[in-house]
Amino acid sequence: MFIAVDWGTTNRRIYAIDDGGTVQETLRDDRGATAVSDYPAEIAAMRARFGDHPVLLAGMVGSNIGWRAVPYAPAPAGAEALAGALAEVAPGVFIVPGVSCQDGARADVMRGEEVQLLGAVASGAVAADALLCQPGTHCKWVEMAGGRIARFTTAMTGELFALLRKDGLLAAQLAGTVEDGPVFRAGVAEGGRRDLAASLFAIRAAGVLGQRDDADAATHCSGLLIGADVAARLTEADGRAVDILSDPVLGGLYQSAVEVLGGTARLHDSQTAFLAGITRIRELAL
Amino acid sequence: MFIAVDWGTTNRRIYAIDDGGTVQETLRDDRGATAVSDYPAEIAAMRARFGDHPVLLAGMVGSNIGWRAVPYAPAPAGAEALAGALAEVAPGVFIVPGVSCQDGARADVMRGEEVQLLGAVASGAVAADALLCQPGTHCKWVEMAGGRIARFTTAMTGELFALLRKDGLLAAQLAGTVEDGPVFRAGVAEGGRRDLAASLFAIRAAGVLGQRDDADAATHCSGLLIGADVAARLTEADGRAVDILSDPVLGGLYQSAVEVLGGTARLHDSQTAFLAGITRIRELAL
Repeated sequence: MFIAVDWGTTNRRIYAIDDGGTVQETLRDDRGATAVSDYPAEIAAMRARFGDHPVLLAGMVGSNIGWRAVPYAPAPAGAEALAGALAEVAPGVFIVPGVSCQDGARADVMRGEEVQLLGAVASGAVAADALLCQPGTHCKWVEMAGGRIARFTTAMTGELFALLRKDGLLAAQLAGTVEDGPVFRAGVAEGGRRDLAASLFAIRAAGVLGQRDDADAATHCSGLLIGADVAARLTEADGRAVDILSDPVLGGLYQSAVEVLGGTARLHDSQTAFLAGITRIRELAL
Repeated sequence: MFIAVDWGTTNRRIYAIDDGGTVQETLRDDRGATAVSDYPAEIAAMRARFGDHPVLLAGMVGSNIGWRAVPYAPAPAGAEALAGALAEVAPGVFIVPGVSCQDGARADVMRGEEVQLLGAVASGAVAADALLCQPGTHCKWVEMAGGRIARFTTAMTGELFALLRKDGLLAAQLAGTVEDGPVFRAGVAEGGRRDLAASLFAIRAAGVLGQRDDADAATHCSGLLIGADVAARLTEADGRAVDILSDPVLGGLYQSAVEVLGGTARLHDSQTAFLAGITRIRELAL
């Protein structure tokens, strides 16, 4: 038995996993890194519940807003490298390092996503050489090579959408819900022109001129942003298949966008991938 | 003599112009469209000061947040078309219509910029066939053909910068001032890749990894945004020269960006262009 925690900024998921790799119990709560200050007390509570087992932590818990800032493992990085660089922050409690990447002048970092990525390969869901996508506030696009994280790009696609909805010229138009369909796909095609600042202003102009119902504006805007993101990555990936690790809703939007822009995409459950990854790291390390 | 007002959302400039086209007096204040409700009283105050002359108004005063929403003149539109479509909102008081544009599925609108554009051509500062740029919160890029506004694109480049500075992941890094130089120009080159959501996240990663002083982050970010804007437009314009109508500070940044991305740019004073344009419209109409 061991305890694994996917410990993000605002939420965490705690898993009790038996030696056969089967999850015995799952807890999800909002005690993310920004809500916790006494980490040893949190660990003590987990062990009081599940027993005095080894604990593996991943995510923002290993950053300067978490328990301790654990240095990034530089890409290329595989499960062996991460298992060999665990930081023991208390007896039997280990933090998985994040991964950094340098691609020319552009630097990038991840914390937490690396476990899902390596798990997707370890479980056989994804090939050892693949382009993976993890949609979200900060969407990760990752080139796996030989089963290792070779290089990656983060696009703040979800955050741009949130900023535009919250404030500024378009906020009042973007109150609607986002759904897949012809409006979304037309937005993706426009986003594929990779001219975001102009395509966004056109939302305003279409509203002023009465050319699009404002109820559709959020869906169109989401399509624009996701389309621009996907188009930048499909170019780099030469149009090949994308494996998406996500919940089905956001993952489905990315899948549609990949298809509109001429690629193919398969959806994989991100929680399943995390479990496979953390189990693999435990096997290698402990 | 006539009175011309460049009446925007938050500010206005009032000019008393004699029959030789010379400005006798200029007033600038913050009585923009959002601050004014009694427009006839504002006009009465102007006439009390300058005399009972014809009044020409341009800008957001002609929108639904202004005195009256005046229909847009569709592009292509020249000075004659605008002079022929003035809206008389009170005896001897005329609003210059804005211009709308339809480019495939993408619609666009302007209010106020059209006077500068036509003035730049009327004064001979800019050729009758030219690519013009008016930087700002909502940057206008305008193809002039035969002296008329043929088509245009608005990019919300300045607004995206303001949103990113105000809130979200990068806000704390972007507190510095923006200036031209190697950091700005490197940002422009990166922006020219037209992968904005990824280039923006890299600002965060460079900060986390200690690769760039946060004091430079605002300058780099401005370069990214302006670079992406310019790169999208130079492609369309096949690399030819750009005439920029602006104040010197923001105009200088755009000029640098055009040069970094392989174009050439000339700067023109936007206030001078407004005066030439409004004088030309008055000659044609009144």
